[in-house]
Amino acid sequence: MRKHLDKAVDRNNINETGLFQILVGHLDGTPINLHNSMFVPTLQTQADKEQQRQWLHRAQNLEIIGTYAQTELGHGTMLRRLETTATFDKASDSFILTPPPPPPATKWWPGNLAKVSNYAIVAAQLCIDGKSYGPHTFLVQLRCENTHKALPGVDVGDIGPKFGINSVDNGYLRLHHVKIPRRNMMMAYAKVEKDGTYVKPIHSKLSYGAMVHVRANMITQQATFLAMCATICTRYSCVRHQGQINPKEAEVQVLDYQTQQHRLFPQIARAFAFFFTGNYIKKLYCRVVDDIKSGNADLLPELHALTSGLKALVTHQTGLGIEQCRMACGGHGYSEASGIPIQYCQAIGGATYEGENMVMLLQTARFLIKATAKVRAGQKPTGKSQVDYLFKNGPRHCRIDQTVVTVDAPNTGPIIECFEHMARRLTMKAYDRLQLAKHSGRADYDAWNDCAVDLTKASRAHTRLFLAKIFVETVKDVTDFGVANVLSDIMNLYLMYELTDCSQHLLEDGFINGQQLSYVQKAVYKLLEKIRPNAVSIVDSWAFDDRQLKSVLGRRDGNVYEHMLEWAKFSELNKTDVIPAFDKYLGPMMKENRAKAKI
Amino acid sequence: MRKHLDKAVDRNNINETGLFQILVGHLDGTPINLHNSMFVPTLQTQADKEQQRQWLHRAQNLEIIGTYAQTELGHGTMLRRLETTATFDKASDSFILTPPPPPPATKWWPGNLAKVSNYAIVAAQLCIDGKSYGPHTFLVQLRCENTHKALPGVDVGDIGPKFGINSVDNGYLRLHHVKIPRRNMMMAYAKVEKDGTYVKPIHSKLSYGAMVHVRANMITQQATFLAMCATICTRYSCVRHQGQINPKEAEVQVLDYQTQQHRLFPQIARAFAFFFTGNYIKKLYCRVVDDIKSGNADLLPELHALTSGLKALVTHQTGLGIEQCRMACGGHGYSEASGIPIQYCQAIGGATYEGENMVMLLQTARFLIKATAKVRAGQKPTGKSQVDYLFKNGPRHCRIDQTVVTVDAPNTGPIIECFEHMARRLTMKAYDRLQLAKHSGRADYDAWNDCAVDLTKASRAHTRLFLAKIFVETVKDVTDFGVANVLSDIMNLYLMYELTDCSQHLLEDGFINGQQLSYVQKAVYKLLEKIRPNAVSIVDSWAFDDRQLKSVLGRRDGNVYEHMLEWAKFSELNKTDVIPAFDKYLGPMMKENRAKAKI
Repeated sequence: MRKHLDKAVDRNNINETGLFQILVGHLDGTPINLHNSMFVPTLQTQADKEQQRQWLHRAQNLEIIGTYAQTELGHGTMLRRLETTATFDKASDSFILTPPPPPPATKWWPGNLAKVSNYAIVAAQLCIDGKSYGPHTFLVQLRCENTHKALPGVDVGDIGPKFGINSVDNGYLRLHHVKIPRRNMMMAYAKVEKDGTYVKPIHSKLSYGAMVHVRANMITQQATFLAMCATICTRYSCVRHQGQINPKEAEVQVLDYQTQQHRLFPQIARAFAFFFTGNYIKKLYCRVVDDIKSGNADLLPELHALTSGLKALVTHQTGLGIEQCRMACGGHGYSEASGIPIQYCQAIGGATYEGENMVMLLQTARFLIKATAKVRAGQKPTGKSQVDYLFKNGPRHCRIDQTVVTVDAPNTGPIIECFEHMARRLTMKAYDRLQLAKHSGRADYDAWNDCAVDLTKASRAHTRLFLAKIFVETVKDVTDFGVANVLSDIMNLYLMYELTDCSQHLLEDGFINGQQLSYVQKAVYKLLEKIRPNAVSIVDSWAFDDRQLKSVLGRRDGNVYEHMLEWAKFSELNKTDVIPAFDKYLGPMMKENRAKAKI
Repeated sequence: MRKHLDKAVDRNNINETGLFQILVGHLDGTPINLHNSMFVPTLQTQADKEQQRQWLHRAQNLEIIGTYAQTELGHGTMLRRLETTATFDKASDSFILTPPPPPPATKWWPGNLAKVSNYAIVAAQLCIDGKSYGPHTFLVQLRCENTHKALPGVDVGDIGPKFGINSVDNGYLRLHHVKIPRRNMMMAYAKVEKDGTYVKPIHSKLSYGAMVHVRANMITQQATFLAMCATICTRYSCVRHQGQINPKEAEVQVLDYQTQQHRLFPQIARAFAFFFTGNYIKKLYCRVVDDIKSGNADLLPELHALTSGLKALVTHQTGLGIEQCRMACGGHGYSEASGIPIQYCQAIGGATYEGENMVMLLQTARFLIKATAKVRAGQKPTGKSQVDYLFKNGPRHCRIDQTVVTVDAPNTGPIIECFEHMARRLTMKAYDRLQLAKHSGRADYDAWNDCAVDLTKASRAHTRLFLAKIFVETVKDVTDFGVANVLSDIMNLYLMYELTDCSQHLLEDGFINGQQLSYVQKAVYKLLEKIRPNAVSIVDSWAFDDRQLKSVLGRRDGNVYEHMLEWAKFSELNKTDVIPAFDKYLGPMMKENRAKAKI
């Protein structure tokens, strides 16, 4: 498969100098994925100065390759229950790492762990004098720097094929009484002293900053996946002629079908929404980090709630969107030549890694419920928070009419009000159901579980509101007249489409009525028509080149069919005209059947 | 990958006798897939008696292997535009098959075409004396029966890797002036005589019976995919303990989380709905075939409309459902060890093959719009059709109240009324919009395209109604008390869940109100709770064995973790401790970087 892709790209006449980029671009992962995204950042944030002097330079310089081993076969979400232990041995000033015998304690999933890394940051339960201090992180050497052989006591290997990201060697790891120096524990915050004294970290929240950072980056990554697939599909929808609208005329570009526009253009709009929000969140993250440095971690819970909700919603909608793009390419979307299957398998991994989506939504909900308690206690909004709208009353009925949803210059105010109303109402509803359950005698945790689905709905609504607001704010700041015009169309489509997509929650309390909704629906159809002539230019504005898209269907030059034929010729099966299975199985079988028939 | 799976299964101690089933079970396709599903049936239905004597027995006896080559690189949906031609040559009493030079005319996609088949039914434009008679089917020998080499003029090969179904050798085919006897044209209906006279088929509708048959079977196939994945997820959700509901107690089975039940149980319910409807449709198909034999093709358009809509809705919901099952397995769902990725990639192909889903929905819509024209013309229902509800008025408001949606014995009448109302209203709405567009001067075909998205909504609603009705009818006929009880719960969940899933369309005209909908929503939560204790037994009732599921997570014995470790050991990457890439790239790179650092 990989070879197949390599050859396909070779045909694009790419010269030697670009080889590394191509190789990396081809794969859905590299040998140093986790080294860059987790190993080095952990050393930067969790190692103390002396430890950094010892390891950071070596890591950054690629003298060693490392990864981050946290989840176990039986433990992902619930970090507190990790089973690998690091027991302090005062006599030798060391930790002894070991998992208990049953399989669930085996480290499982870390990327680049199986074959590439010679070091790993390992999360393990810290034990001193028989007392457990919870999970901490330790630098463990896994393989000899010279021979690369696994060190004694280190049982490490590959976990087998996956849905996607098969270029990355996700691994398992069992450490059997592996001894490491005491100073291999990451000691920027928590510490263990020579005599076994445990020193607590100053601030318990600091440790989850890294998680927030990874999730913030994921939004932009997911936007990129979706944008690439939307580009492929948009271009191909102009190459592909199929069927007639007017039976007397020639076959039309499939992009002329309303159904095609309706499954494709909202994906373009969502990709923009995710890009804008990704940028915003990264800036917000930097501000929060600066705040924390000056001792103020106030915004961290809010940022955590936002990134959790966004991670869940964005990965979900990206997955759905990519598949819509693939299916909108018809049969050829199903071929690897479309370049979309590999993108789907990689992107959808994001719905699971870095926090399972349901867990993520419930984290956001916890923040919303806390804020709602303040609302109900009659407190005032801070004026600076993304949940300030919960404190407002807002209009009782939606202000949308035909003048609001004109295609050219809709009034975004009443539309944002809809999202606000929805998020507020669903949050209040979940809060009230939660209180009711508690008052009826359910324990807090049972009440929470009883209301969990309603709580996830509130989180999604909150996240949708945020995405909509950021889109509107971003477009307001665009000064180039032409860009602003086109971008407004996309924004309007985004707002109207999302509104119809979640209209149930606006209809059920009568906030919006059927008539108003039909204005919105009609505006969606009008916008599809309006965007149609600009669609190719819009996706071209993302400026993905053919190497990035790796798609025969999405080629910039549009010469799809001849290159499909070319591409197919590189199939492994085409190495011989007659496959070995003919001589071995099929030939003898048919021959025997013919002989029998003659008797 | 295949080897990997083989080994994994070997470990389950399956004896030799089961080997063929296992091999076949492993693959997402076999060398005789198309032979059985398309080649033989075509000979049965489109060859005349004499032709059958010549070929059918040889095909059924596997003396030859055939496939069905219709779609071309540039032509799928629009059969009339196929470019391969079969030109009658009177002098030699033959047809000469050839495509025009440009690549789009190349046959593309037929399964088992690339390497396995030595014969194919080829669809080509019939040309006699310079006149085209549209697409007809021809038997063409592709490969020598003895050597299996491609015959002169036959350019045939593999089209390369796909999203799934990679066990099947989908192929391309270009025939360069290949001459076949006149009698190789399928002549059960249309005929070409020796002198070039063309004889038209008696009944134009007969040719699409086969398509209807394939789509009818797809419903059961899709149900099986979904049921298998729901089985895997349900079993694993009881093996997996993660997190606490009560913080003082042990970690719980993840199936105890409401969010987990809410993503999983509706998939179980949908699988049942699809099984029941699949059975119903297959019976209906047999009845229609009998009718046709006695000269009555009245029911064929209705069956065609039903199967088209079902094909689209069922493949779409199955795809979504499988992915929900996979993601509900957390990280391990992403591993091939879950067995779910391969099922998804195979099942979702169904959204594209045998008629692209949007095209399918619009076919259903065409039937609905014709029926609506009769309604508007004041005609009476026939009393026998699945669209009779369009002629009824129905209540103006939904009759759901708390007594209707009791969890134990809900009254299905008012619920079915909701589905009827929705289907009727969306169909009428699309019809009226269509008329309005025409009256405003739009050509029929433009009006149709303007309303296409609304038309697909009507088709989905019609199909949802049908699925709901069949579920209710099926459960009514169950006589075993215990089975009826459990099945009623599933049916109720199905009805209530679907109702909330499409509630927007019931809310927007005020048919249902928010209060009524909240009763339905609460019933969903209650039903999740009620089904929870029976969930494993319910999926076990499908009686999939471990060989069929091919899933470490879904093992019947529940010994998941130890077998995950076992399974991983068979990874190709684990053949050596140190991979060749270390000596070639990673080792030298790190060594060089270390040497530089010392300078």
